[in-house]
Amino acid sequence: MSLEMQFTEHMKKLIAYNEAVSLLYWDLRTGAPKKGVDLRSETIGVISSDIFIMSTSEKFGDLITALEAKKGELEPVMLRSVEEARKQYDLSKKIPADEYKEFVILQSKAESVWETAKDTDDFSLFQPYLEKMVATTKKMIGYWGEKNGSAYNTLLDQYEPGMTTEILDEVFGELRNRIIPLVQKIAESTNKPKTDFLYRQFPKEAQESFSDKILEQLGYDFEAGRLDETVHPFMIGINRQDVRITTKYDEKDFRTAVFGTIHECGHALYEQNIGEELSGTLVETGASMGIHESQSLFFENFVGRSEKFWEKNYELLKVFSPEQFGQVPQEEFIRAINESKPSLIRIEADELTYALHIMIRYELEKGLFNGDLEVKDLPQLWNDKYEEYLGIRPSNDAEGVLQDVHWAGASFGYFPSYALGYMYAAQFKNAMLKDLPNYDELLAAGDIAPIRNWLTENVHKHGSMKKPLEILEEATGEGLNAEHLAKYLEEKYSKVYQLA
Amino acid sequence: MSLEMQFTEHMKKLIAYNEAVSLLYWDLRTGAPKKGVDLRSETIGVISSDIFIMSTSEKFGDLITALEAKKGELEPVMLRSVEEARKQYDLSKKIPADEYKEFVILQSKAESVWETAKDTDDFSLFQPYLEKMVATTKKMIGYWGEKNGSAYNTLLDQYEPGMTTEILDEVFGELRNRIIPLVQKIAESTNKPKTDFLYRQFPKEAQESFSDKILEQLGYDFEAGRLDETVHPFMIGINRQDVRITTKYDEKDFRTAVFGTIHECGHALYEQNIGEELSGTLVETGASMGIHESQSLFFENFVGRSEKFWEKNYELLKVFSPEQFGQVPQEEFIRAINESKPSLIRIEADELTYALHIMIRYELEKGLFNGDLEVKDLPQLWNDKYEEYLGIRPSNDAEGVLQDVHWAGASFGYFPSYALGYMYAAQFKNAMLKDLPNYDELLAAGDIAPIRNWLTENVHKHGSMKKPLEILEEATGEGLNAEHLAKYLEEKYSKVYQLA
Repeated sequence: MSLEMQFTEHMKKLIAYNEAVSLLYWDLRTGAPKKGVDLRSETIGVISSDIFIMSTSEKFGDLITALEAKKGELEPVMLRSVEEARKQYDLSKKIPADEYKEFVILQSKAESVWETAKDTDDFSLFQPYLEKMVATTKKMIGYWGEKNGSAYNTLLDQYEPGMTTEILDEVFGELRNRIIPLVQKIAESTNKPKTDFLYRQFPKEAQESFSDKILEQLGYDFEAGRLDETVHPFMIGINRQDVRITTKYDEKDFRTAVFGTIHECGHALYEQNIGEELSGTLVETGASMGIHESQSLFFENFVGRSEKFWEKNYELLKVFSPEQFGQVPQEEFIRAINESKPSLIRIEADELTYALHIMIRYELEKGLFNGDLEVKDLPQLWNDKYEEYLGIRPSNDAEGVLQDVHWAGASFGYFPSYALGYMYAAQFKNAMLKDLPNYDELLAAGDIAPIRNWLTENVHKHGSMKKPLEILEEATGEGLNAEHLAKYLEEKYSKVYQLA
Repeated sequence: MSLEMQFTEHMKKLIAYNEAVSLLYWDLRTGAPKKGVDLRSETIGVISSDIFIMSTSEKFGDLITALEAKKGELEPVMLRSVEEARKQYDLSKKIPADEYKEFVILQSKAESVWETAKDTDDFSLFQPYLEKMVATTKKMIGYWGEKNGSAYNTLLDQYEPGMTTEILDEVFGELRNRIIPLVQKIAESTNKPKTDFLYRQFPKEAQESFSDKILEQLGYDFEAGRLDETVHPFMIGINRQDVRITTKYDEKDFRTAVFGTIHECGHALYEQNIGEELSGTLVETGASMGIHESQSLFFENFVGRSEKFWEKNYELLKVFSPEQFGQVPQEEFIRAINESKPSLIRIEADELTYALHIMIRYELEKGLFNGDLEVKDLPQLWNDKYEEYLGIRPSNDAEGVLQDVHWAGASFGYFPSYALGYMYAAQFKNAMLKDLPNYDELLAAGDIAPIRNWLTENVHKHGSMKKPLEILEEATGEGLNAEHLAKYLEEKYSKVYQLA
C-alpha cells in the first residue's frame, strides 16, 4: 500500500472512531437512561483513549514523517491533512509521556475542584489547582516551542491558527473604545424597550414546531441531521451526513430556544456544507473555533435578530403563541429581542456586551502567560475590570472569576475565539453586501439560500484547508477589522434605543 | 499485571466496543438521518471488525491458553469467561483465515441475492448460493470438529449449548402429535371468536401510553432503558444499565405494539436482572438464544395473553381506546387475542401453530446436514410439509422456502431455539406454580414482582454461567419436557374455542 493509502486508511479509522464517540456523547446528553451513565462514561473513556493512541502511535508518526519528506508531490488535501496530523501528533508527543498523563489527571481533578469552588463560592479551593495548571501549561509551551514570539501566542495558535496578541490588542482595543460609550449611552437612555411580553408562557411543543419551521427556512438539512432537547444546546457532527443540533426550551422565555436553535443551526450549516472532496480526511472540519463561531453568530444575530428576518417570521411566531404576541407591534418586538444590559455572566450576555466579557478574560490570560500576573490576584482584577468595562461589580467569585469551566480544563487561549467570531461575522456580512445588495429583501422574503450559499462559497466549503485569516482575507479583501462590528453595533443600538 | 487482570482488561475493552456498536446500530434503527446511513454502516463495519480482531488476536489466544493451564485456580466467573472466550476464538481461528474471509463475503452476497430471489419469487437465483453456503458450513464443521456426534449437532450447540437432534426429535415429535389434532379441531370448530373489533383505529400515541403503563407494571426499569419505535421491534443491551426496547405501532391492529412490547420487555427483564457479580465479563449475557426466547415468550404468552392479566388491564385498555373496546365483553376480547389460524408466514404465526413452522425448518436443516437432502429439493419438501402439518400450501416460494433470511446468513441450527423458548417457558411456568400457587391472583392484581423475581432467581441472575439445560433442570427439576407446553396449549385452546 502506498504511503498515501496507508494514511487515508488511518484517517478513515480515526473518523469512524470519532463517529462512535460523538454518538455515545450525543446519546448521553439527549436520552440515555440515568443508570447507564457511569458505564457509558467509561466506554467513552476507553474509545477516546484508543483514538489518542491511534493519533500518537509511533507507526502513525513514521507515516507522517515519511509523507512530509515528499511534501512536494502531495495533493493539496493530503498535504493539509498531513499538517493537521503533525499538529495533533506534536501537541501530545512533544510532552514526555508521564508528564502528559499527569497533566490529564490534573485537569480532571481541577474540573471537579472548580465545580465545588464555584458551588461554595470559594476561590481559595481552586487557586492551587489553577496555579499548577498555569505552571504546567507554561512548561508544555516550553516543550512545544514558542509560536509567534510569545507564550500566550502559542496557546492562541492552537485554537485560532495564526492569531496573535498583536492583532488582538489592536482590534479589541478599538472595539472596546466603541462599545463602552455605547453601553453608557444605553444605560442613560430613557427610551428603553418594553420587554414584559417576552416572559409570557409559550408552550414547549409550540416552540419546537416554530423552531422546526425556522430551521427549514434557514436551509438546515433534516435528512442529514436532527433536532433534540438538552440542558445545554450544542451542535455535533456524527458523520458528514449526520450533523445534529440540540436546543433548550424555556416556557417563560422563548428566546432561549429560538436563538439557541438558530445559533446551533449556523454551526450545523457550516458542517453540512464542507466540500465533498474533503470527505474522509482530517480537514473535513471547521477552520477554527473563531470561524465556526462566526457562522453561528452570523445566523443568530445578522439573520435571527434582524428586523428584516421578523418581517417574514413575526406573523408565523404569532401563530404559535398568539396570546403572547397578538397585541405587540412588530417594532416593539424587535426592540425587545435586542435589549442590551450589562450583566455579570458571560453566557447570558447580549450581543453588545458579550465582547467585553471576552476582553476581560483575554487580558487576564495574557497577563498570566506573557506578563507577571499571578493567579492569586485574579479575583480582584476580574472584579475591577467588570466595573471598569461594564459598570457592574460581581458580589462574589461564583458570579465572577469562577463562572467559566475553561481554565479548569486548561483551555487557555480559547476565549478570544468567541469575540473573533463576532468580528468575523460582521466582516463577512459587510463583504456579502457587495455581492448581495438585496440582502435585506432576501431576509424579508425568507429567501435565505443566496445568503447561505455565499457563506458556503466563501467559508464552509473550505473546511480547514485554509487558515482562519486566509479565509477572512479572501472573502472580505482585508485583514481582521473591528470597524465592521463596531459600526454595526452603533447603528443597531442607536436604532433600538433611539439614541440621538 | 496478572493473567486474570490482563484478561479482565481485555473483556472490558471488548464490552466498551460492543456498547459503541450497539448504540451505533440502535441509533441507525431509531432515528439516524437518512443521508448519514451509508457512512454509519461503514463505521459499524470498522468497529465490528476491530472487535473481531481483538477477540481473535494471537495475544488474546495466548492469554486464553495460559488461563486454561491454571483452570483449577480460577474463580467460577473467570473460568466460564475463559470458556466463552475460547469458544468464540476457536469458532473463527480454527478456520484458515482466507477461507473465513471468503465465507463472510459469501454470506453478505447470499443475503443480497436472497432479497432479490424473495422479491421476484425465484428460488433458482438463490439455490446456488444456498448450496455453497451449506457446503462451506459442512467444511467449517470439519475444521471445528463434530460436537455431540453429528454435523447438525455441532451447529445446534453454537446457539443452544448442549442441544442435540436426539433431544429435539423426541420433544418435537411429541409436541407435533399434540398440536396437529388441536389445529384440526380448531379448524372444524363452529365456535370461532369474533375478532372484527381488533382491527379498529387505535391512535399511535394512545398505544404508546398504554405500552408505557404495561412496561411499568411488568417491572421494566425505565431508568435503565427506554422504549422507541422501529420497523422491526427488538431489544438491545447497550450496557448493563441501559437495556432498550423498540416496538412497532399499527393503528389498525393494536396487538402488534402491545404484544411486541411485552415480548421485548421479557428479553429486557432478563438483561436488566443478570447478577451484578457478572458485570464486565463475557458471561454477562443470556445463557442461550432459547433461554432468552423463553423469557420473552413467558411474558408475551403466559402473562400478556392470559385471562388474568386482562382482568387487571382490560379496563385500562378501554381508557386508551374507548370506542374500540367499550362494548366488547372481556371474555370476547380474551378469545379474540388468542385466535389461532394456520398461516404461511412464520413471523405472523400464533402461539399454537408457531412451533410447527419451526419443526418444518428443523427437519429440513437436519436433512441437509445429517441426511442426504439436497438444496434443490427444499421448495417441494417445504410446501409438502406445510400441507402436512398446517393443512395449507404456499402458492409460491416467496411465501414458502424463501421467507426467512436465516439460511442466507448461514444461521443453520438457529431456528430450533424459537420452539425451545416456548417449551422452556411452559416448563418454567409449571415449576413456578409450585412456588407461587397464587400465580393467577398475582396476575389479576397486577402484582408481577413475585413472578419476575422467580425468573430472576432461577434464570436471569445466572447470565450465561450455566448451560441452558442446567438452568432448566435446576429450575424445574426435570429435563426438557414437551408435556408442559402441550398441556398448556390444549387447555388454553379448548377454552378459547370451547372445544368438547
